[in-house]
Amino acid sequence: MAVRHRPAAAAPGDPPPASTAAVATPDEPAKEPVLRPPNLRLAAVAAVLFLAPFSYLAFVHYPLDADLRRSILKCAAMSLAGFFVALKFIPVAARYHLRRRMFGYDINKKGLPTGEIKVPEALGLVVGIVYLVIAIIFQQFHYTEDSIWLVEYNAALASVCFMILLGFVDDVLDVPWRVKLVLPTIAALPLLMAYAGGTSIIIPKPLTPYVGLTVLELGSFYKIFMLLLAVFCTNSINIHAGINGLEVGQTVVISAAVLIHNVMRIGSSTDIETQQAHEFSIYLVLPFLTTSLALLAFNWYPSIVFVGDTYTYFAGMALVVVGILGHFSETLLLFFLPQVLNFLCSVPQLFHFVPCPRHRLPRFDPQTGLLTGTKDGNLVNIFLRLFGNCSEKALCIRLLIFQALCCIFCFWLRYMLTGWYK
Amino acid sequence: MAVRHRPAAAAPGDPPPASTAAVATPDEPAKEPVLRPPNLRLAAVAAVLFLAPFSYLAFVHYPLDADLRRSILKCAAMSLAGFFVALKFIPVAARYHLRRRMFGYDINKKGLPTGEIKVPEALGLVVGIVYLVIAIIFQQFHYTEDSIWLVEYNAALASVCFMILLGFVDDVLDVPWRVKLVLPTIAALPLLMAYAGGTSIIIPKPLTPYVGLTVLELGSFYKIFMLLLAVFCTNSINIHAGINGLEVGQTVVISAAVLIHNVMRIGSSTDIETQQAHEFSIYLVLPFLTTSLALLAFNWYPSIVFVGDTYTYFAGMALVVVGILGHFSETLLLFFLPQVLNFLCSVPQLFHFVPCPRHRLPRFDPQTGLLTGTKDGNLVNIFLRLFGNCSEKALCIRLLIFQALCCIFCFWLRYMLTGWYK
Repeated sequence: MAVRHRPAAAAPGDPPPASTAAVATPDEPAKEPVLRPPNLRLAAVAAVLFLAPFSYLAFVHYPLDADLRRSILKCAAMSLAGFFVALKFIPVAARYHLRRRMFGYDINKKGLPTGEIKVPEALGLVVGIVYLVIAIIFQQFHYTEDSIWLVEYNAALASVCFMILLGFVDDVLDVPWRVKLVLPTIAALPLLMAYAGGTSIIIPKPLTPYVGLTVLELGSFYKIFMLLLAVFCTNSINIHAGINGLEVGQTVVISAAVLIHNVMRIGSSTDIETQQAHEFSIYLVLPFLTTSLALLAFNWYPSIVFVGDTYTYFAGMALVVVGILGHFSETLLLFFLPQVLNFLCSVPQLFHFVPCPRHRLPRFDPQTGLLTGTKDGNLVNIFLRLFGNCSEKALCIRLLIFQALCCIFCFWLRYMLTGWYK
Repeated sequence: MAVRHRPAAAAPGDPPPASTAAVATPDEPAKEPVLRPPNLRLAAVAAVLFLAPFSYLAFVHYPLDADLRRSILKCAAMSLAGFFVALKFIPVAARYHLRRRMFGYDINKKGLPTGEIKVPEALGLVVGIVYLVIAIIFQQFHYTEDSIWLVEYNAALASVCFMILLGFVDDVLDVPWRVKLVLPTIAALPLLMAYAGGTSIIIPKPLTPYVGLTVLELGSFYKIFMLLLAVFCTNSINIHAGINGLEVGQTVVISAAVLIHNVMRIGSSTDIETQQAHEFSIYLVLPFLTTSLALLAFNWYPSIVFVGDTYTYFAGMALVVVGILGHFSETLLLFFLPQVLNFLCSVPQLFHFVPCPRHRLPRFDPQTGLLTGTKDGNLVNIFLRLFGNCSEKALCIRLLIFQALCCIFCFWLRYMLTGWYK
């Protein structure tokens, strides 16, 4: 109850324009825009596709402990509930975002009637909040009060929450680029401060004769590595974007790969600490995956909502947190191969060796409905130049298949190198 | 790098009106409004007034442990740095908030030229972020990796961070009242889940013959009590508002009282766990107090910025967290006496037994510059009716003196009742 009129919230100067009639049901007054229904078929297909391998490995292939399976089922049930809660609240929040003028126009549909629709922005907020609530409540069902994991679990939650806050601040206030780079550094602080794991790296066996060590103790430098990883992962998801469904799609693929990696490591390892670390990761990634699927149902082509930096930052931090606390940050980086390639291709423009436009997006032809690659150095445009013009949806699917292939390559690489490499 | 134009951020339809010229320096083009400088004299006076008793008790009166004193000094140094960082970044963020149409008009100055100024809103955000960074970094200097306090410390940070996020979301999206009540419940979850302290209350001695118990074990009901406390404290600060400087002023007074209580308990107790609990509270309240003072310098009459629900929620949660984890929630409630009274007076209107206007503010007379009390049932109006019309600044000072008197009464009560009561 503060001393103020809310000029923008009341939004007297912001009546819904004629174009929103396209998304309003015909018999309803055009007072409040009505969103199209989410693409539930897509969410169902994606859920089966990305959760089936994990479920098969966890409940059929590996003879996991009954207690562990029960915990995974509990977590899965809560994650499923999270999916439905996110599905219900995304349209509710979207109306608030529109009222508060938080929307964008879909540049890749410029020239079509759909390009005139106000698409609500920053809906990653809903997913982030639902995810946090699930992850917070889950600890009550699993961890006992004296568990050594509770410090790291709470530090992880604090980091993810801080990242969602700063991401939303960025979406609302539109901070400049140099500040954007600093935000993940700030948000990663709880994680860095609470991190109590090892700070040494194992030197790859082929290199040990040259280094003269098998284990290199990095001490505080390890924390700098963690920080750089957090900054890289959050920003690399943020710049591998610009196509309907790509931001959420890539993180769903990576999360599915992380889950498979976790269960494989639990199944193949006998070290109790390694198992616990990967278990920890499962409990944090499963709700992340399901709530993201709810967002994907709204963000898939043609997008009903945009995810905003809130989501890309949140997703990057959620994955970094499990990578670091689950002790598989190297594997995580391999899952991020497309993001690494996209970053490397973007370096000349990001550091202004070459001119960089505000949006490095393909050219859209409203006549054919196809996208044409520009000379901008990012995967989106490189894929169009390499594999020919295509629709936005096809491009997103191609990029997600590439992401999945990179994850499969990572599994193959780990399988091949085991024993020889470490 | 999302697919969007940012219509509101670019703000083409939002040129600064003529009235902002009043706050712009005359020789600067009126492109970007320039804020008036903060009231540093007030901040200095308040700092001395509110930190002197604590400093005297901690460094002169009680023979505290040298290690503890060193830790308090470290925390004080970081808190001082936080004061200057907040002081520097509040005007920077204020410009972003104005650009993003996050501003309000000062209703208590309606009819004067100052009532036409766009006052940036929700600047509690800066204080919240600076506070979190200090609190996060501080654990590195104080707590060792195996400290049992680290779980609760991180849960506290997660709760405070979650509350800042939800407060900012409320400021941006202007959620309805029934949702406002739920927000602190959600944000308090990390605290509830990680709380590992006792769940019993000591029955006051005069009541033991009737109850038949000296200690009542509440179990899970204790967590419900914690939840209600969180909901009450956050919302009660939020509704004891509406006067320049009152939101920040009341929390500064309460924080100073909490610090004094902490150091008195450390000095007078021999139980190591009690001492650690109050130490914990000092480390979280000290940076809260100093960063709030920076905000007070901008929010004092005439307000250059408004604090927003972001601040009131953040402040309430920061105090609840230390009250619960420091095990002095009953004393905290006594410090909240004016808020309790204000809530009780507000009940008929809040629950709509009596009509409730959107703002329950006094009437302002632009001719005399004085406020007149209305019939609304809140302390702001009751004070005007009881003690006569006065200026906004005088009213704020009266209300803060009342807050300080209530805190002194609480100390006296504790002193009188020790031994007899518990």
